[in-house]
Amino acid sequence: MNILVTNDDGVHAPGLLALAQEMRAFGDVRVLAPDRNWSGRGHVKTLDRPLRVDDVPLADGTIAQASDGAPSDCVALAVLGYYDLKIDLVVSGINPMPNLGHDVTYSGTVTAAMEAVIWDIPGIAFSLGSQIHHPQSLEYTAAARVVRELTEALLAHGIPDEALLNVNIPDLPYEEIQGIVLTRQGLRVYRDRLDRRVDPRGKAYYWIGGDAPTGVPEPGTDVGALAAGYVSVTPLRLDLTDEKTARALPLWDRHVADPTRSPAGGGVN
Amino acid sequence: MNILVTNDDGVHAPGLLALAQEMRAFGDVRVLAPDRNWSGRGHVKTLDRPLRVDDVPLADGTIAQASDGAPSDCVALAVLGYYDLKIDLVVSGINPMPNLGHDVTYSGTVTAAMEAVIWDIPGIAFSLGSQIHHPQSLEYTAAARVVRELTEALLAHGIPDEALLNVNIPDLPYEEIQGIVLTRQGLRVYRDRLDRRVDPRGKAYYWIGGDAPTGVPEPGTDVGALAAGYVSVTPLRLDLTDEKTARALPLWDRHVADPTRSPAGGGVN
Repeated sequence: MNILVTNDDGVHAPGLLALAQEMRAFGDVRVLAPDRNWSGRGHVKTLDRPLRVDDVPLADGTIAQASDGAPSDCVALAVLGYYDLKIDLVVSGINPMPNLGHDVTYSGTVTAAMEAVIWDIPGIAFSLGSQIHHPQSLEYTAAARVVRELTEALLAHGIPDEALLNVNIPDLPYEEIQGIVLTRQGLRVYRDRLDRRVDPRGKAYYWIGGDAPTGVPEPGTDVGALAAGYVSVTPLRLDLTDEKTARALPLWDRHVADPTRSPAGGGVN
Repeated sequence: MNILVTNDDGVHAPGLLALAQEMRAFGDVRVLAPDRNWSGRGHVKTLDRPLRVDDVPLADGTIAQASDGAPSDCVALAVLGYYDLKIDLVVSGINPMPNLGHDVTYSGTVTAAMEAVIWDIPGIAFSLGSQIHHPQSLEYTAAARVVRELTEALLAHGIPDEALLNVNIPDLPYEEIQGIVLTRQGLRVYRDRLDRRVDPRGKAYYWIGGDAPTGVPEPGTDVGALAAGYVSVTPLRLDLTDEKTARALPLWDRHVADPTRSPAGGGVN
């Protein structure tokens, strides 16, 4: 089994090394990750410039590859043949912040796993569920143990090729983690504010500022599970079709029934 | 009604101007778009640097704003108060290439509309459905007429706040467009190949190359509608929870029923 490990924090992030080390128990591991931080920069396919890939040593002496592309580019490089081998599983992380609710389309960690699934390879994103980012206090030992147990259990049961799993692990000592639950995507509450400042030359610039996001800790959701001390496993899909909104647009319902008709009030003939 | 117009091709793209001009029939229009091309670079929230916003004249003499952020950053800037007014509708495009199937999470056009919906504002992405990119032959007149008719019909029926619509318009003369249909997300077929080259200093670099994507023109899908000459309207959702994969993971089904139990074969205690 050939496993690709990537992340969005860059090849030297401690969470990447923790994840790579756990994956060695399950197969032949390749690490190909961005050469710098790509957090919050979504699903990317870089077509307007070529990508570089360089060998870099990780902290444990193993050799990884660093690319100047996005996390999803790293996955594309590996899937399209950079290593001349078939990749069977893509894992991404361990991200030092949770990826909950609407975070998933922004997240480099999750979109790397999305890229795998687009190529019919299962993708799993692992994130550490601290509400606030305290990089100095992050401890990956418990999370790594959860990653190993989860992966063991998934492989024992078989992972569907189209499986895209968003896993969030509480930032707690192993003994305090309450269990693993299957969840649905919950509701993130963003608290961004525009922060206008003036540069030394009198010209305005704008930070997306404000407070860190919170979430609605509803039972059954990723936010709720994490808040209750559980590991959250949310299966995601890439077919975003929204049947509910479709039903709220009676105009288009009618069109589905009769696709050759024009919309009421001025349609295309 | 305050309407924000943005795109991912940059503030000087002809499709943006065509869209802005049509929107003036429906309300007070602000144009805030990236200062350069952001195609294929997904859903972004720029937090690691401030954003600049500059006034720039468009080809019709009106003033727009250009930002050095992503399309979704442009939406965030406007929603968070750059214009000191409440934005009621965000439209993005007109993109010179279609956004079909799995394109939606990569697409700057679509992710701009996603950003709107995250802030409870309806978002509509408009793309022109040429299969292959021929910018020199693009003609926005027919597409602009479709945009106006669609928007009229949507406003007459009411747009739900959570509506995220991905609209693809065939690149055809108006008379040849067959109608407007509500669709589901179809299947894109990517044909990327890794193209390894060697630079003048003997060092390798890699293009994501290969042929342009095709798609499976299944009836009822965006790909199928466009191939048949119809305007495709696909409502999208941002809750990506995949109930189908959830059912394929019996392990987790059990956990949902009994969240305090460990997974078979070595769970968290």
